[in-house]
Amino acid sequence: MKTLKRVQKVTSRLADFGKWYTDICLKAELIAYSDVKGFIIYLPYGYALWENIQKYLNDNLQKTGHQNVYFPLVFSEKLFQKEKDHIQGFSPEVAVISSVGQRQLSEKLIIRPTSEVLFSQYYAKNISSYRHLPKLYNQWCNVVRWEKTTKPFLRGKEFLWQEGHTIHATEQEAINQTLSIIKLYQKLGKELLALPFVCGRKTEKEKFAGALVTYSLEALMYDGQALQAGTSHYLGTNFAKSFQIQFQDKDLQKQYVHQTSWGVSTRLIGALIMVHSDDEGLNFPPYVAPMQIVIIPLQPQDKLVRVTAKKLFDTLKENYRIHLDLQDKTPGWKFSQYELKGVPLRIEIGKRDLAQDEVTVFQRYNFSKQNFKITTLKQQIPVLLKTIHNNMYERALKHLEANQKQATTYEKFKQHLQKGGYVAMSIAGTEAELQIKEETGATARIILDTPLITTSCPVTNQKALHTVLFAKAY
Amino acid sequence: MKTLKRVQKVTSRLADFGKWYTDICLKAELIAYSDVKGFIIYLPYGYALWENIQKYLNDNLQKTGHQNVYFPLVFSEKLFQKEKDHIQGFSPEVAVISSVGQRQLSEKLIIRPTSEVLFSQYYAKNISSYRHLPKLYNQWCNVVRWEKTTKPFLRGKEFLWQEGHTIHATEQEAINQTLSIIKLYQKLGKELLALPFVCGRKTEKEKFAGALVTYSLEALMYDGQALQAGTSHYLGTNFAKSFQIQFQDKDLQKQYVHQTSWGVSTRLIGALIMVHSDDEGLNFPPYVAPMQIVIIPLQPQDKLVRVTAKKLFDTLKENYRIHLDLQDKTPGWKFSQYELKGVPLRIEIGKRDLAQDEVTVFQRYNFSKQNFKITTLKQQIPVLLKTIHNNMYERALKHLEANQKQATTYEKFKQHLQKGGYVAMSIAGTEAELQIKEETGATARIILDTPLITTSCPVTNQKALHTVLFAKAY
Repeated sequence: MKTLKRVQKVTSRLADFGKWYTDICLKAELIAYSDVKGFIIYLPYGYALWENIQKYLNDNLQKTGHQNVYFPLVFSEKLFQKEKDHIQGFSPEVAVISSVGQRQLSEKLIIRPTSEVLFSQYYAKNISSYRHLPKLYNQWCNVVRWEKTTKPFLRGKEFLWQEGHTIHATEQEAINQTLSIIKLYQKLGKELLALPFVCGRKTEKEKFAGALVTYSLEALMYDGQALQAGTSHYLGTNFAKSFQIQFQDKDLQKQYVHQTSWGVSTRLIGALIMVHSDDEGLNFPPYVAPMQIVIIPLQPQDKLVRVTAKKLFDTLKENYRIHLDLQDKTPGWKFSQYELKGVPLRIEIGKRDLAQDEVTVFQRYNFSKQNFKITTLKQQIPVLLKTIHNNMYERALKHLEANQKQATTYEKFKQHLQKGGYVAMSIAGTEAELQIKEETGATARIILDTPLITTSCPVTNQKALHTVLFAKAY
Repeated sequence: MKTLKRVQKVTSRLADFGKWYTDICLKAELIAYSDVKGFIIYLPYGYALWENIQKYLNDNLQKTGHQNVYFPLVFSEKLFQKEKDHIQGFSPEVAVISSVGQRQLSEKLIIRPTSEVLFSQYYAKNISSYRHLPKLYNQWCNVVRWEKTTKPFLRGKEFLWQEGHTIHATEQEAINQTLSIIKLYQKLGKELLALPFVCGRKTEKEKFAGALVTYSLEALMYDGQALQAGTSHYLGTNFAKSFQIQFQDKDLQKQYVHQTSWGVSTRLIGALIMVHSDDEGLNFPPYVAPMQIVIIPLQPQDKLVRVTAKKLFDTLKENYRIHLDLQDKTPGWKFSQYELKGVPLRIEIGKRDLAQDEVTVFQRYNFSKQNFKITTLKQQIPVLLKTIHNNMYERALKHLEANQKQATTYEKFKQHLQKGGYVAMSIAGTEAELQIKEETGATARIILDTPLITTSCPVTNQKALHTVLFAKAY
């Protein structure tokens, strides 16, 4: 294996992580900005990532009996007000339709920031017996939340997501559902995105508005900041009581349903970029990559080179997302382009290699080059892709593990925090959490299911309640 | 073949077509109403139809080089005002966001009724050379148009659709694109939905706001009313000039791009129902049916019946959307349910048939029953499905052809019209069209590419300009 010299194309990741990120999103044509601040355009190369995530989740959700539905974009203010915690959480950031053309509407309409109230109302009207349960509904849609600061994929005034809304006859079944979805999201991370997550319950302060328990998946970006990548909520009977979602059980008793909701969004794409990419540009793990392989003929004017390239393309196109680049540009320009675009494998076809019946294969994730006999290539490619995927996952996992510390004092906590990553500390509760946020900017990411590190809280000196993983977060 | 006696389940189609239609949509659980009038909930059985349409179109669009993107839900008022005809056409029905939480926005935002202005603005900023052309973008999304009267699938304040937006270097290429999409939609109708369309240009009055030419596909509902099922617009350089979408051609000259836009929506589901369904309920052609086959064991307590049913289910589940109904209900109740749901094939497994190694197969579209040897079933099913599909298409085509008349006088026109269906008449132009609409309620559906029926217009007595197909329409 030879290692290739790298060429600078985007702002350096170390010099300015924020600028590096938006540079990549724009230059690799994942997105473009629209005329309204905070709304982005998903270009083909960016949207394809979302389509691959959708396909993975749809296949898995279908296998476990979930059904896709589509609920409306809007609901009435009255409906919104039915669940108190929920409205308090979302009210400041909801967009409101109050007119059509030049006419005022008699009732203002809320654009969905999430759809618990819509599903709850539907369930209330249509569920009456245990025979109707469970309902395992999911929808893919856009939602609107008026965020103050926005960043492509990570935080926008509109984003795309899937939101699952299920109802169950028993608490246990609903809790199992909540947890099984967290497992599914972890599998998505591990199998498709090469993203390891830390995973656990949110604190009272950080949980979803209206939930009893929120489980969260948190990814660690290359710069040491955390990102909430997905959540699964056990809603208990909160919405069921506000909306009167009741059913008759086998003993003819009226019962409230137990409810869950859960979602992942286009944020995952942000995590994908911020974890794996580098100063050369994007760096996609192979199973989610919009283009998995690019074939570049080094001397396209040479007939054997051209014919071999075309033949190889035809051999592989059934099984891979592959592109044969015949543009009238230099190989060097093309190399640089597809490195920026994060294409996992590049097959270079040149006269010298062909004399040995070989081609050169470049791996984007570690910049290695290796020669392969053409005859073995078809067998080698799945092996290469699998190795790349696994190595990218392991690399991200190492980064995550190396950046997860413990603190026995508040001083130590602050020192760890300055270096980025997660810091675990045993705290007394919300008061400590608020003080930490105020003084360090770090937020409680999840509660760890581990023994207490210290018996008293280093911040408040009160009795420690639980161990919380803190981090600065996007 | 034996013919089965029918049972009344929904309002009769002949007695009250409108009530019959909404009855079916609600009772077969395709949709439910939401709390805001004009917005519907797509339930799993209804949404699956849309997913099947999406899959068919996505596969076909991808093969011809189209790329999926996602543009924002909103745009600024300023952007909306750039193309004069366009804003005039859509302005009265656009929903406006003017506040967030309790705060007023400094600039009101329009919720997309269609996205020409967004795509045009993006293209204007990002296209500069003939090398960038063509761009063949498509998006799947929701749009909002404040329709006064609404009807499930056919007309709603929010609907789901795909909208394609392409730009090209030459007029000819753009016109070819416009026409190739119409061919694709016809293929969708013929191959997936078993729906025949009449197809042609819209009149000046009926064309899309901002287009030079609109081609339309029109389906004929069972009640004799027409339905616009899809459109493909050649926009010329209208938007290119308003938005300054220019490129440098091979001779270094600045040129405006030639643009198209085109779409089909969830209306197609309305057409599917109104053309094929009957007094027993839904009646789906097999390739779009959410459930293609249902297996019903007649004596589920019998072991051989149960085992055979399960074995058959396992044999077929790889290739078909199939359901094995083991619910504790009578066969009769189940028959009636799946007829209401329009499942194309029902396989009844009973002891008597099994004694002959046979099962009974019921075809929903013609209520026929036929016995098959179990061993031949796997080979017979694709043949059955194809025959059902073709026969449903032919039946719809016959209905369309039988309800397409010509008129040489205005009197004759009115007589034909009263019986429903299309009436062709050669007219002088917009003035005649307006008068016809005013006096009969019929609108110009498409211009026919046929010789004039009469040399003068029966309505205005002026020289006839072209032959137009009229109908009352949804």
